[in-house]
Amino acid sequence: MMTEHYITSSVTPLDNLDVLSPYEVARLQDKSHGGLYNLFRQCALAVLNCGSQLDSTRMVLNRFRAFDIRISHKHRGVQLDLINAPATAFVDGELIQGINEHLFSVLRDLLYVADKVDGCCEGLTPSGAITNQVFNMLRHADALRPHEKPNMVVCWGGHSIVHEEYEYTKRVGYELGLRGMDICTGCGPGAMKGPMKGATIAHAKQRLFDGRYVGISEPGIIAAESPNPIVNELIIMPDIERRLEAFVRLGHGFVVFPGGVGTAEEILYILGILLQECNQAQPFPLIFTGPAGSEAYFDTVDRFIRATLGERAAACYEIIIDDPHGVATRMKDGLAEVTAHRRATGESYHFNWQLHIPLMLQQTFEPTHTAMRDLCLSREQPDHELAAQLRCALSGIVAGNVKEPGIRAIEEHGPFELHGEPDVIEELDLLLQAFVEQRRMKINHEEYEPCFRLATASRAS
Amino acid sequence: MMTEHYITSSVTPLDNLDVLSPYEVARLQDKSHGGLYNLFRQCALAVLNCGSQLDSTRMVLNRFRAFDIRISHKHRGVQLDLINAPATAFVDGELIQGINEHLFSVLRDLLYVADKVDGCCEGLTPSGAITNQVFNMLRHADALRPHEKPNMVVCWGGHSIVHEEYEYTKRVGYELGLRGMDICTGCGPGAMKGPMKGATIAHAKQRLFDGRYVGISEPGIIAAESPNPIVNELIIMPDIERRLEAFVRLGHGFVVFPGGVGTAEEILYILGILLQECNQAQPFPLIFTGPAGSEAYFDTVDRFIRATLGERAAACYEIIIDDPHGVATRMKDGLAEVTAHRRATGESYHFNWQLHIPLMLQQTFEPTHTAMRDLCLSREQPDHELAAQLRCALSGIVAGNVKEPGIRAIEEHGPFELHGEPDVIEELDLLLQAFVEQRRMKINHEEYEPCFRLATASRAS
Amino acid sequence: MMTEHYITSSVTPLDNLDVLSPYEVARLQDKSHGGLYNLFRQCALAVLNCGSQLDSTRMVLNRFRAFDIRISHKHRGVQLDLINAPATAFVDGELIQGINEHLFSVLRDLLYVADKVDGCCEGLTPSGAITNQVFNMLRHADALRPHEKPNMVVCWGGHSIVHEEYEYTKRVGYELGLRGMDICTGCGPGAMKGPMKGATIAHAKQRLFDGRYVGISEPGIIAAESPNPIVNELIIMPDIERRLEAFVRLGHGFVVFPGGVGTAEEILYILGILLQECNQAQPFPLIFTGPAGSEAYFDTVDRFIRATLGERAAACYEIIIDDPHGVATRMKDGLAEVTAHRRATGESYHFNWQLHIPLMLQQTFEPTHTAMRDLCLSREQPDHELAAQLRCALSGIVAGNVKEPGIRAIEEHGPFELHGEPDVIEELDLLLQAFVEQRRMKINHEEYEPCFRLATASRAS
Amino acid sequence: MMTEHYITSSVTPLDNLDVLSPYEVARLQDKSHGGLYNLFRQCALAVLNCGSQLDSTRMVLNRFRAFDIRISHKHRGVQLDLINAPATAFVDGELIQGINEHLFSVLRDLLYVADKVDGCCEGLTPSGAITNQVFNMLRHADALRPHEKPNMVVCWGGHSIVHEEYEYTKRVGYELGLRGMDICTGCGPGAMKGPMKGATIAHAKQRLFDGRYVGISEPGIIAAESPNPIVNELIIMPDIERRLEAFVRLGHGFVVFPGGVGTAEEILYILGILLQECNQAQPFPLIFTGPAGSEAYFDTVDRFIRATLGERAAACYEIIIDDPHGVATRMKDGLAEVTAHRRATGESYHFNWQLHIPLMLQQTFEPTHTAMRDLCLSREQPDHELAAQLRCALSGIVAGNVKEPGIRAIEEHGPFELHGEPDVIEELDLLLQAFVEQRRMKINHEEYEPCFRLATASRAS
Repeated sequence: MMTEHYITSSVTPLDNLDVLSPYEVARLQDKSHGGLYNLFRQCALAVLNCGSQLDSTRMVLNRFRAFDIRISHKHRGVQLDLINAPATAFVDGELIQGINEHLFSVLRDLLYVADKVDGCCEGLTPSGAITNQVFNMLRHADALRPHEKPNMVVCWGGHSIVHEEYEYTKRVGYELGLRGMDICTGCGPGAMKGPMKGATIAHAKQRLFDGRYVGISEPGIIAAESPNPIVNELIIMPDIERRLEAFVRLGHGFVVFPGGVGTAEEILYILGILLQECNQAQPFPLIFTGPAGSEAYFDTVDRFIRATLGERAAACYEIIIDDPHGVATRMKDGLAEVTAHRRATGESYHFNWQLHIPLMLQQTFEPTHTAMRDLCLSREQPDHELAAQLRCALSGIVAGNVKEPGIRAIEEHGPFELHGEPDVIEELDLLLQAFVEQRRMKINHEEYEPCFRLATASRAS
Repeated sequence: MMTEHYITSSVTPLDNLDVLSPYEVARLQDKSHGGLYNLFRQCALAVLNCGSQLDSTRMVLNRFRAFDIRISHKHRGVQLDLINAPATAFVDGELIQGINEHLFSVLRDLLYVADKVDGCCEGLTPSGAITNQVFNMLRHADALRPHEKPNMVVCWGGHSIVHEEYEYTKRVGYELGLRGMDICTGCGPGAMKGPMKGATIAHAKQRLFDGRYVGISEPGIIAAESPNPIVNELIIMPDIERRLEAFVRLGHGFVVFPGGVGTAEEILYILGILLQECNQAQPFPLIFTGPAGSEAYFDTVDRFIRATLGERAAACYEIIIDDPHGVATRMKDGLAEVTAHRRATGESYHFNWQLHIPLMLQQTFEPTHTAMRDLCLSREQPDHELAAQLRCALSGIVAGNVKEPGIRAIEEHGPFELHGEPDVIEELDLLLQAFVEQRRMKINHEEYEPCFRLATASRAS
Repeated sequence: MMTEHYITSSVTPLDNLDVLSPYEVARLQDKSHGGLYNLFRQCALAVLNCGSQLDSTRMVLNRFRAFDIRISHKHRGVQLDLINAPATAFVDGELIQGINEHLFSVLRDLLYVADKVDGCCEGLTPSGAITNQVFNMLRHADALRPHEKPNMVVCWGGHSIVHEEYEYTKRVGYELGLRGMDICTGCGPGAMKGPMKGATIAHAKQRLFDGRYVGISEPGIIAAESPNPIVNELIIMPDIERRLEAFVRLGHGFVVFPGGVGTAEEILYILGILLQECNQAQPFPLIFTGPAGSEAYFDTVDRFIRATLGERAAACYEIIIDDPHGVATRMKDGLAEVTAHRRATGESYHFNWQLHIPLMLQQTFEPTHTAMRDLCLSREQPDHELAAQLRCALSGIVAGNVKEPGIRAIEEHGPFELHGEPDVIEELDLLLQAFVEQRRMKINHEEYEPCFRLATASRAS
Repeated sequence: MMTEHYITSSVTPLDNLDVLSPYEVARLQDKSHGGLYNLFRQCALAVLNCGSQLDSTRMVLNRFRAFDIRISHKHRGVQLDLINAPATAFVDGELIQGINEHLFSVLRDLLYVADKVDGCCEGLTPSGAITNQVFNMLRHADALRPHEKPNMVVCWGGHSIVHEEYEYTKRVGYELGLRGMDICTGCGPGAMKGPMKGATIAHAKQRLFDGRYVGISEPGIIAAESPNPIVNELIIMPDIERRLEAFVRLGHGFVVFPGGVGTAEEILYILGILLQECNQAQPFPLIFTGPAGSEAYFDTVDRFIRATLGERAAACYEIIIDDPHGVATRMKDGLAEVTAHRRATGESYHFNWQLHIPLMLQQTFEPTHTAMRDLCLSREQPDHELAAQLRCALSGIVAGNVKEPGIRAIEEHGPFELHGEPDVIEELDLLLQAFVEQRRMKINHEEYEPCFRLATASRAS
């Protein structure tokens, strides 16, 4: 039995990622404010901590206070010295190769982002510049494969789901994998790991040696959702919105498993895109699925969507319960439509340029009382705009309910005031209540108390 | 949901296996006695039936009476036409690639054996000629890799084990795979599939893209133990003894999971080899392992071995309960010893020529009353000979208890008479009883009745 | 400057060719009559002597009397110890990798032939059995590639041609290579090396990394025509007739450069095949070509063919002078026809089974007085039979003119008597005279004296 | 015979180079001043014109006035439409694959340079920033291979040398290639092509399938020295100085063949580096070599170096005449020293960071009358500074003698005035005269007239 918890070791990468300039090495070692050391250390630790069950960044950082990472140049390339790293990342003292790769992916993406601040986008709109950056990062990470037919299935869902749900995600991944599909997730445990595991077995049976298991993360969540080592392409986007954009531009089909509020937010993000007029000609396979026994989650979400955004929104997705084979064949048909559409319109297979993402969904939402009050939760606006507003409201409510800064803000300033229709506000309340009852949130049923209320006065700017 | 049960389809192999001469095609299509058609059809059906739960050759053949296979030459190579094949081998009408490979492995090995009858061994002993044939078949199947360090772990055990035991074999396979070891089994379900599945996930994490999952079968059992498609090297040896020899010459380490009488026979086979004087200098890692709750199986076997063959035999193996990590690290050490030994003695990494296998273990045992009566179950002979005799006795007793021809023979001629010491006969009885109680045999506890007795008279030739 | 002429060194192969059984090692070391040692040593020496200018087997063997080769087993495979090997095969003491490969190709083919004596052809005609063996050897040498479109161009011609002719063969090879064609020759210098060299440069420009340079030799000539190391697939057929059959079954198009009598014999061999009724539906690109200044050779050959075999024979080939680009585009068209024909008739791309080769052309011709007298050189037989007879006559006449045993036989028994038409005999005489004048034979113009005469009496059996 | 001279065709790249953003496509199509169209068209044309003998950019551009290149996006990536392109780049209407690759290398490097203007070098010195850019470009072109031992031999020399010299460069390349060395040149004809051709044959014999033939060019000279298609890594640096820096940082050994004044300039560039104190501990293999008959060139250069820079400079190189084997073994020893040094000092194998290149050699020299007058050609300065000054002087004198703007400037303002020692000026004169006599310059012996004179007055600013 293993007893040691920390390991100190040196690793070198297997391939060309280790060609760094002294200038880059210096930046990675720079502990000053502008330097990359702190960010790199934090992401590296997250990557090394993949076997652990801790799911808060703070707990991880605290437990491995003594962790350090140093970079040095050798005649054959770069070497990383890991000091007091989590022992779970090692087998008999040697770093698991998949984790080794992840370390150098982190390094690659942090350096790229640092190198690219501003610049080189003259003539592009703000939205276009963000999309261009997402494209550049994916290309630099070698994630764009122009000669492969559309087959990248993005899987979303909770990272702390129950055993039956986890097994179900494996079965769905297996059926997708049997049909040659690749998997892309947010790269943590649960619904982000299961499909990859299932697909790995299926790809082995189909002798698909280049199966892709893409994990897209960002520095803010990577510690809580450590990439599992099956991920063979890890990409660290600079923030949550660019991460979401990377999913929808890279993916060809989308499967949503049960999750919590985060998953509901992602659904609203995607509906905010799909409901736009200019995106409606595009085939966009979107399937919600779970095992028998998990219907409630999607019932709740579906009801909420129909009540607030209407039938047109509900037509964007399909709900399939307890049928991995059905999910896979439906997805296969969907991908065939995507392929035909891309071919017909000359759109590239590897990056969905045609999809229009409004700037609002590309920018970060900070859930302050002011920002919440400025939201407009009314059906008297285009449904795609309401979807985007709801996504923000949901984000703020979760903060107010369970996140520390949010709870403190509520204690100080009282509940958030939301503007809009009473019906919409009420639906929000029902949605949250249901999640609590289904144990999808870290809150007890009895404790639930809405942290928001309908604003009576007209909005003050 | 899939509803069709039979599929008719044409397949071509991916690589050079499809270069056949018209002469070979004719042999494969030859339905006469000397022709290969019937054997090929039977093995092909077994390979195609991998998803099924039927575990008797007769049931499989019966269910797929309408199955046919035809071979034809196309300008780019050979084509197989499958008529009324099991639908489980297909995904959306296309044969699973791993099964496609298996079909052509069958074809490769049947043709090779047919081509090689007799001949080309002048100057070799009968035993040497058999070993040479085993070598030639493994080489022809491209299973010998001279540049790879010893890392092939043979896993034996039952094909119909309980869920906890199956999950345990996966965990052991995972730990072996994390350490870069390859897996070789008899290629059916249960303990033959679990380790491969675990190793597949581990190899993916370690980025070992050339992980080997070798399945060694033979025409007599392939239908009952269909190769699972993870097997990426399927080898069909001509009979059960050559199959066993292939295991011990190709493997570098051996893990035995709980099984039934077949597994006990394999253990006696291996002890019959290891107890020989000339083999004792060789390191030969041999571990018996199972999850908590399965100790009884190995307790029974261990007791039997100590009682009949003695402590020297018991020193050949190690029993590790409920510790996958321990199994893997112990095996890793064992492989290091094997490597050092091969290097020191100039023995090849890829084939264990040095191991002496007595002719008796290379030849088929037919369990007739005469053959049983001719066995000598006495400790007054070298222990390795007793091990070989016990293996035969066990084989005959199983036949008498549960196999149709055996049962009939007992009904006609009465119980087998065994010669030897009463203690040994009694131990045999205890072993069988324990297996029945542990539900390791297809027989109820109440029904168990020994099909053998100690012969009182002296042996009549 | 290099001064040493002999090097002693040990080599191991790069790949799986080194998996030998002790039984095979023993055969290769067996210096007795039935053993392979002498044959292996002779072929190995030929392969090692590739840089040399000696073109007689005897001179080579004599110069390297002290050469020895030993085989031993190491834990990672076979090792060859080379003692007093030609220094030209080494660069700074290390064997050129291409030559290393050749050594193991020799070993592979000699063992294969030795293993296959007789047997395994029940039901085949004598001719069919020979073809089957040719197929088996090519397959075993991994020379059959079912998925590659017909693009193998066999190049024949002299091994001691003048500089302009050599440069021309390079230019033709370059143009063939630019069009993705592979090259197959008899693997010595001159016209057998030039096309490969040209194609190597062209393949590099076209990024064709798997260009094939196949050399087909046999033990009797390999010493005189050492394979050049560009050959990346060396195949040693057991005798000259199987070598010729390998060319015509493996090749898809044929280019003949100027040569000597040997080249003329090869042309007659091919005409003996093509003139058969059953072969005439097959497209069979056959181009004779040389630089400006070398027209005489093909004029002579063409005149002889028209005079003896008639216009139908002359229609089998095309003569193109001083136009590498024209040769290549014409060949490209020819290969397209071959591809269309194979596809239409279901014939494999990789081996021309459809071509009928009469048993007479598959069997060795020994040029004794009796055998020569038994030839029938008359146009009163089918032209394909006359072509085969002429090939034998040519073979005998060359022996009588320049080969030691032939010269001695003529001295003892007088000139060969040939039966047939005076015109045909006279054409033979003219052909030989012209070759002498063109310095295509090792004989001076003044010394030429026919070693044959028309038999006046009727043939005595 | 080919008669067409222009071909219109569409090409797509084989690999990931074709993943461009619409933003990048727009830049490449932008014909305005800031856009890349003109530069791209000019370089693309140079690449396509590789078979031609024209060696002036103007003539090339003039002849292919009608050439156009357009870029468009397809669903599988980028497509280039070539209109009226030189037919010599095609084989039967299809672009030679090597040239296809070159087109996309051009595109890659032009986009990279355009994207990187300024920025991202805070904290670096001007010299460091230039070096960093050279590194970034080479890395982006995937030219840095950290795991390969030093084996990159840079070959310099004239692009219009005589046949014997060309054949000699092939022989040297062959001997280098036999020893596993890669070749890097300026990628035109003559001494830049021969070594690659020889190495290609040698690599084929050694089965080195990943032989590197690196060509480094820049927009100003690419039209005059079209990359030959053997070059399998084409890199377009932004200007002549960065190109020179790329050679010395990427190369591990240097061979100089006979050339003209350009070659002499390159020699002075390298001496300007090597003579610096801080570079003297580094092993830096530098061999001047040519066939028998070409001694005069190196005699002249050697005499000039000794007379002006002294013996210490002459100790930097070795002259080897007519001995390809000697060059290769000497280079092999030199590379071993380089490897040992890099290993000992922790310097990377793939980029020579340690070499100090003074800013003066990194910056462009414009040969105006003022700039020439400002040079200081006196031995009263460190020798490495004099080497740099001489390199400039040489550059100016060539301009004054044979380049149109230079000739015009001399006609207008009289000869250049040079400051410094009479002896040095005289040596310059002798060097130029000798080159004219040896037909190394495009000027007749009779026409030679120095375009410079010793300045008598003191320098006026």
